[in-house]
Amino acid sequence: MQQLYMDDLHPGDVFESGEYALDTPEIKTFARQFDPQCFHLDESAAANSFFHGLAASGWHTAAVTMRLVVESVPLAAGIIGASVELSWMRPVRPGERLRVKTTVNEIMPSRGKPDRGIARMTSETLNQLDDICLVIHHKIVVFKRS
Amino acid sequence: MQQLYMDDLHPGDVFESGEYALDTPEIKTFARQFDPQCFHLDESAAANSFFHGLAASGWHTAAVTMRLVVESVPLAAGIIGASVELSWMRPVRPGERLRVKTTVNEIMPSRGKPDRGIARMTSETLNQLDDICLVIHHKIVVFKRS
Repeated sequence: MQQLYMDDLHPGDVFESGEYALDTPEIKTFARQFDPQCFHLDESAAANSFFHGLAASGWHTAAVTMRLVVESVPLAAGIIGASVELSWMRPVRPGERLRVKTTVNEIMPSRGKPDRGIARMTSETLNQLDDICLVIHHKIVVFKRS
Repeated sequence: MQQLYMDDLHPGDVFESGEYALDTPEIKTFARQFDPQCFHLDESAAANSFFHGLAASGWHTAAVTMRLVVESVPLAAGIIGASVELSWMRPVRPGERLRVKTTVNEIMPSRGKPDRGIARMTSETLNQLDDICLVIHHKIVVFKRS
């Protein structure tokens, strides 16, 4: 893939990722380490919870989204996030296949550092039915071609 | 720990977590799965990168923060996030020990659903020198004592 610099990015550019399938063992492994709550770990407890069934940790969905962004948005210096806003729109269930569509919103040159800027991008994480599961608004550090 | 309902939460309440130490093997294992970029995987490549040395993925730091929030904020229905804003203030390095301080900012009753509301909380993730590494502003679903 071509490595992209700040100069190469324009509002409206879209990047589409491949797929990542989330199964029950991976959902439980992530949750045991990082989000040990019953609705991510135990089917019967999850059935009686807010989620009405086993759901992936939202932080797991976010981490998978990052993986798909790294694979699909070829920034020359890598994906270096300054800040993000995440909204979880719906739970991700075992067996779902996720993909990410990332859109460039705005390129903001740095005032103090002439070699770089911030790219505002939005990533939508969709399941195999094209339901939006997660929306991330990123501010990513990008560099000019030197 | 006492299980807390919406009625039990008040602006200014503070919850302090235990510690979580991040070592190089865990940093690389997380990065291989979710954020495969050189500055999270390879010491010498990281030395020549934006981070000037190996750094944990920001999503790893976020996941560890969630673990510490789950362990330290005893909400009766669990920690159910609707949305969050994350700002990464500084990289987390191998060997750092993280802890999280969570403060309740505001309790907003739901307009449509009388049994619940949204708690706005802020989690600061600090290293062993009390440097702030990550700030998360959460909106968390909370339930009234029925």
